Amino acid sequence: MQELFKKAWEKIEKSKNIILAAHINPDGDALGSSLSLYPILKKMGKNVKVFNVTKPLPMYLDFLPNFDKVTDKLPKNYDLLISFDCGSFDRLGIEEKPPFLINIDHHISNTKYGDINIIDSKAASSSQVVYNMLKANNIEIPSESAVCIYTALVTDTGSFQYESVNEKVFEMAAELVKCGVKPDFVAKMLFQRDRLSRLRLLAKAYDTIELCCEGKVAFVEVTKEMMEITGAIKDDTDTIVNSVRAIASVEVACMLREDDDGIKISLRSKNYADVSKVAVKYGGGGHIRAAGATINNEFDFEKVKEMLKKDLKEILKGEK
Amino acid sequence: MQELFKKAWEKIEKSKNIILAAHINPDGDALGSSLSLYPILKKMGKNVKVFNVTKPLPMYLDFLPNFDKVTDKLPKNYDLLISFDCGSFDRLGIEEKPPFLINIDHHISNTKYGDINIIDSKAASSSQVVYNMLKANNIEIPSESAVCIYTALVTDTGSFQYESVNEKVFEMAAELVKCGVKPDFVAKMLFQRDRLSRLRLLAKAYDTIELCCEGKVAFVEVTKEMMEITGAIKDDTDTIVNSVRAIASVEVACMLREDDDGIKISLRSKNYADVSKVAVKYGGGGHIRAAGATINNEFDFEKVKEMLKKDLKEILKGEK
Repeated sequence: MQELFKKAWEKIEKSKNIILAAHINPDGDALGSSLSLYPILKKMGKNVKVFNVTKPLPMYLDFLPNFDKVTDKLPKNYDLLISFDCGSFDRLGIEEKPPFLINIDHHISNTKYGDINIIDSKAASSSQVVYNMLKANNIEIPSESAVCIYTALVTDTGSFQYESVNEKVFEMAAELVKCGVKPDFVAKMLFQRDRLSRLRLLAKAYDTIELCCEGKVAFVEVTKEMMEITGAIKDDTDTIVNSVRAIASVEVACMLREDDDGIKISLRSKNYADVSKVAVKYGGGGHIRAAGATINNEFDFEKVKEMLKKDLKEILKGEK
Repeated sequence: MQELFKKAWEKIEKSKNIILAAHINPDGDALGSSLSLYPILKKMGKNVKVFNVTKPLPMYLDFLPNFDKVTDKLPKNYDLLISFDCGSFDRLGIEEKPPFLINIDHHISNTKYGDINIIDSKAASSSQVVYNMLKANNIEIPSESAVCIYTALVTDTGSFQYESVNEKVFEMAAELVKCGVKPDFVAKMLFQRDRLSRLRLLAKAYDTIELCCEGKVAFVEVTKEMMEITGAIKDDTDTIVNSVRAIASVEVACMLREDDDGIKISLRSKNYADVSKVAVKYGGGGHIRAAGATINNEFDFEKVKEMLKKDLKEILKGEK
């Protein structure tokens, strides 16, 4: 890994026009990692652009230094593109293969589409891979970069709560604070700018929670009517399924959302159930603990729940 | 501070029968700090008891090693009592002054009621003071103690989100992981054993959110009827006011709860308003950012809101 870090940095040093890019619909890690290198490369005298195909960008990340520099127009005539947190090339939203591509990620499923691939599946965030690369090359981390690296870490570990959190993660957090990060500022920006519409939607959705399979499975519903009444946007539904999974008895939580193109199901498991199997059955996909699919409109919520109940019973029987 | 740490440890070494105690209605820091010394003192051959006057203890902390050892019967004939996270002697629930008392805390308001007082108001948790004391005396931290120290830290920093979180906090977290803490296990125990009744209560309560004062003030209501319909317990109301404060525009959130002895008001502010002033006016108390009071039964919710609106308008005008 140390050798890859050096090789990548050599390439960066030799390049003049550099693009920093992340996957479509970027989360904190994708955008934070992209933006973390911006001040450093600028200071090195590079012509740097931060590219993301998504418009508008998620507003909850607007406090990241240089957020306003992100563009959805891919510049022409560049030497090097660095991609962050992006599992496959098509998710960058770029048509032509770049002249040179450094691929920095922490997803084990990464398709290694770069000329240099730095994939560390043990890293808690892609920003930790960036951090390790900077350390390996003795690059000083300015406060603007540290905030981006730290924010990416916080969002990708659920505030230091996931399995990926180990001593190295905390050591990095300590270092980033030394570089100028104020953890309470980042937390306020991420978690203290909530929307009333979201709480109103939770009120409606939580009222529909239904437990079955001895409390191991929980369903929660979000209808178009709920969205309209509360003025909620799709982002407002993000945390619902996780909150329902957090019920003590629950192993699998499933949110059903009425979308234009069908019923969107979001599945989460807590300890052992592989919910990706169920998602795949309905033409979707995902991971063991988080998966989803869209089921077409010929069924209603009750019918879909009935089908899923059967599937989930099987899964819970087979495992653990 | 180093000298105090040494003096306290010398006293511990000389004592045979030791009681570890914390304040009534203990939170994660109080109970975690008390329990953190238990395995260490046991190994030193001491006769150790962990005392807390509260019954039952909060169930969400039942995963702490030696949770089952906590007793609400104060043993007789002991040499030393160590109190943790307890601002004043009366909150220990002990009648007679102990023969010797070491008072370990991080609240600036601590009344220094001990024979030795180790109060570090810059510490993120009382457990950080314990940790520093162990370090200062070169005491090895067994995994059972580390889990208690870490849990106390997580609960008292809102999972590394409060102003008290600095590089030392993260360095300590890294050390505790080296001692055997699994951060994801602690997070699962603390945050993934939720009650359905709590979510059902949130559904009812969030439906009552009302913004005023240009969105700076938010009210939320919890009635007895809501509690009965949802089967919620008082603990289920704990996070409501914090979640309402998290709305972007809100500076002060206020929960009104219908209790047997009147209307309990819980006030939280985000950045600048001193809500303790309002609480004191109604015979309550608290801190700048978190305060509360109970208003007697002669008023209804609407009347109380009207009064509070006036008070809060004043406060918001005066400050910032």
